[in-house]
Amino acid sequence: MAQGFSFHGQLSAMARERLESSAIGDMARLANEKGAISFTAGEPSADLFPVEELKEAFKGVFDDPSLLCYSDDDYGLIELREWIAARMKTDGIAPGWVGGRDILITNGGAEGIDMVSQALIDPGSVILVESPTFVESLMTFRKQGAVCLGVPSDDDGIIPRAMEELLKKRKVRFLYTIPNFQNPSGRTSPLERRLEILELARRYDFPIFEDDPYHYLSYEGTPPGSYLELAGEDRRVIHTSSFSKTLAPGLRMGWLVVPPPLVDALYALRVSAGFGPAGILQKGIYNLLSNMDFEARARTLQDAYRERRDGMAAALAKHMEGTGVKTNVPKGGFFIWGRSERVTDMPRFARYAVEEKGVGIIPGGPFFPLQEIDPHTFRVSYAKVSPERADEGVRRLAEAFREYRED
Amino acid sequence: MAQGFSFHGQLSAMARERLESSAIGDMARLANEKGAISFTAGEPSADLFPVEELKEAFKGVFDDPSLLCYSDDDYGLIELREWIAARMKTDGIAPGWVGGRDILITNGGAEGIDMVSQALIDPGSVILVESPTFVESLMTFRKQGAVCLGVPSDDDGIIPRAMEELLKKRKVRFLYTIPNFQNPSGRTSPLERRLEILELARRYDFPIFEDDPYHYLSYEGTPPGSYLELAGEDRRVIHTSSFSKTLAPGLRMGWLVVPPPLVDALYALRVSAGFGPAGILQKGIYNLLSNMDFEARARTLQDAYRERRDGMAAALAKHMEGTGVKTNVPKGGFFIWGRSERVTDMPRFARYAVEEKGVGIIPGGPFFPLQEIDPHTFRVSYAKVSPERADEGVRRLAEAFREYRED
Repeated sequence: MAQGFSFHGQLSAMARERLESSAIGDMARLANEKGAISFTAGEPSADLFPVEELKEAFKGVFDDPSLLCYSDDDYGLIELREWIAARMKTDGIAPGWVGGRDILITNGGAEGIDMVSQALIDPGSVILVESPTFVESLMTFRKQGAVCLGVPSDDDGIIPRAMEELLKKRKVRFLYTIPNFQNPSGRTSPLERRLEILELARRYDFPIFEDDPYHYLSYEGTPPGSYLELAGEDRRVIHTSSFSKTLAPGLRMGWLVVPPPLVDALYALRVSAGFGPAGILQKGIYNLLSNMDFEARARTLQDAYRERRDGMAAALAKHMEGTGVKTNVPKGGFFIWGRSERVTDMPRFARYAVEEKGVGIIPGGPFFPLQEIDPHTFRVSYAKVSPERADEGVRRLAEAFREYRED
Repeated sequence: MAQGFSFHGQLSAMARERLESSAIGDMARLANEKGAISFTAGEPSADLFPVEELKEAFKGVFDDPSLLCYSDDDYGLIELREWIAARMKTDGIAPGWVGGRDILITNGGAEGIDMVSQALIDPGSVILVESPTFVESLMTFRKQGAVCLGVPSDDDGIIPRAMEELLKKRKVRFLYTIPNFQNPSGRTSPLERRLEILELARRYDFPIFEDDPYHYLSYEGTPPGSYLELAGEDRRVIHTSSFSKTLAPGLRMGWLVVPPPLVDALYALRVSAGFGPAGILQKGIYNLLSNMDFEARARTLQDAYRERRDGMAAALAKHMEGTGVKTNVPKGGFFIWGRSERVTDMPRFARYAVEEKGVGIIPGGPFFPLQEIDPHTFRVSYAKVSPERADEGVRRLAEAFREYRED
């Protein structure tokens, strides 16, 4: 009785069977606790946040008290949505039909993924994902009861032929893809692949859910066209992104580009989910963006993170020889994907590396759909790691791979 | 093809069958368009927002850049949660076991209601609600597939005997109740009723979901103890509230008190739903609250809204005689509930009143569970109405009731 009511008989199937806790956070916390060199971060580097500009931008947000009322338009502040639509068009990410009215402001990218999942997933629905893919999206899809099927991927992302084999067997609700500098694999699909995948979506008649948070963190020129832009008037692509990487993740500000047939459903979901981020927050971010040279900011971020990528890649090339570990070199984003044929229990190795050698990585398992886990894989982030720290950390990591024994 | 992909085959049962648009917003918009005297508002009055205090409180929020990172604790900023827990204890709303760690910060009260609905409702689950009750909660419960059964209510809220009759027939997931100054009925349950209802919850072994946003808008002394406090160590009450009425609704800041067995499920739902409101927003509100004489603010609000309630009640007493309309006098909150035996199509009457007489009210239908609609009812809000405007508006409303004909 001291514990009180158990709630056992009251939980939904979702709460009983389909909610998971993230395995990623635990490893990041352990690395912090041990004072290790941490390659675990999935977030941008705090030294690159535009703090002074934010201070300035938020000064006037209380001058318009209507922002403190319930909003007339729960899709979000129209000037912010128009800024986003215009930016996307300038950058070749959005086709002609996309205007401010087609943009829904969300509480970070994650809320948009949750809302789309509620609108498109029934228990048992089959969806296609890259294998591996972003763990928290997998968790959200599974929360709604989705069966997530991984499409075999190589260094250019999804393999269209492998996708068609799956499509011949199963009717799918949508394909979820992070086409640029994917989390966790760092992979980017080239244009030809995108066109083939879009053609398959047309032929087998399903939509594409495109998640593009790393778009502006491209270190070797502009990424290939977005699925949203490539689909054009076909409008079968739901696109999501956020300011988490270009501004700061703690601002919790993302958006969806909503195809017309989904507008009403997402409006109703938005009302249920609390009407979206506070007006003053949207206004402050709009003030920031409208006074900012966004392209210059993107270049600043690209220069800073490119140096970190290069440092990490150089360290891996220098130290990893002879360890049997293979890693890729991404063209943008935060992540390098690694594989060791010899290590078959990567969570155990990761604990060994952080405890014995003082270096933290993220085991790859949670990024795979269930029953497709490649236990040999791991993720390295360079987002918050200077080239010097990368060199020392990778030296330790290589030592760990050499000395680790599974018995 | 100009319209593009239809998404018809891709929608979830939720999106196809269970999402509704709010009928309330339409009536409020019509009243605005027609320049009518509007009694439609479900929101606080902008002249009572603490704008200067908010400006001051937000000045320092960018000094701690860690607030711009992903948070370590997705339940929210611990100092804000501890402020809330302490406040609730001081005010006799929370029992001893409730501390800051038991508080989950939400994007307004609505997000908390959505999260609890996901955790406790399966398609077909039966839940009990007051009849009438808050329309947006009904929409959220139905979105998850709940069958909402209304418990017959009188001017003292839920009738315990009527509730027991329902409990004998159906197993319920929970009772949803707004015990103080309910939206839309203005009703408050006295202590004896609460104790009887809590006893039924124990006997029939279900939890209570208590929604208490109007707590501090009490115009005649302190409201009776909350279900949360009355249940004590039994811990069968989930409690939600928000700062929408005490500070401003556009801040989108609410909370849940989470019983221990639900902590993990709500944590997972929080991660899926985008990690909660931005850290700087939580910090700004914490700064505001910790520098504010909250009790004095509550008194200011009570004095202002009491005057408006009195004005509206006086106007109704003065003008409504002979119209056959019955209204109540609430002890707090924003709402008066009305009924006209003669009007059987209240939406039609409401359009007539706004178009012909220039006064806006909200028809009562949407506030009832489906198939229990009392078509004679309507809601009047005095939240944003001075006694002078109330007098003129009610004069018009009475004229409308006298002259309106259904044929």
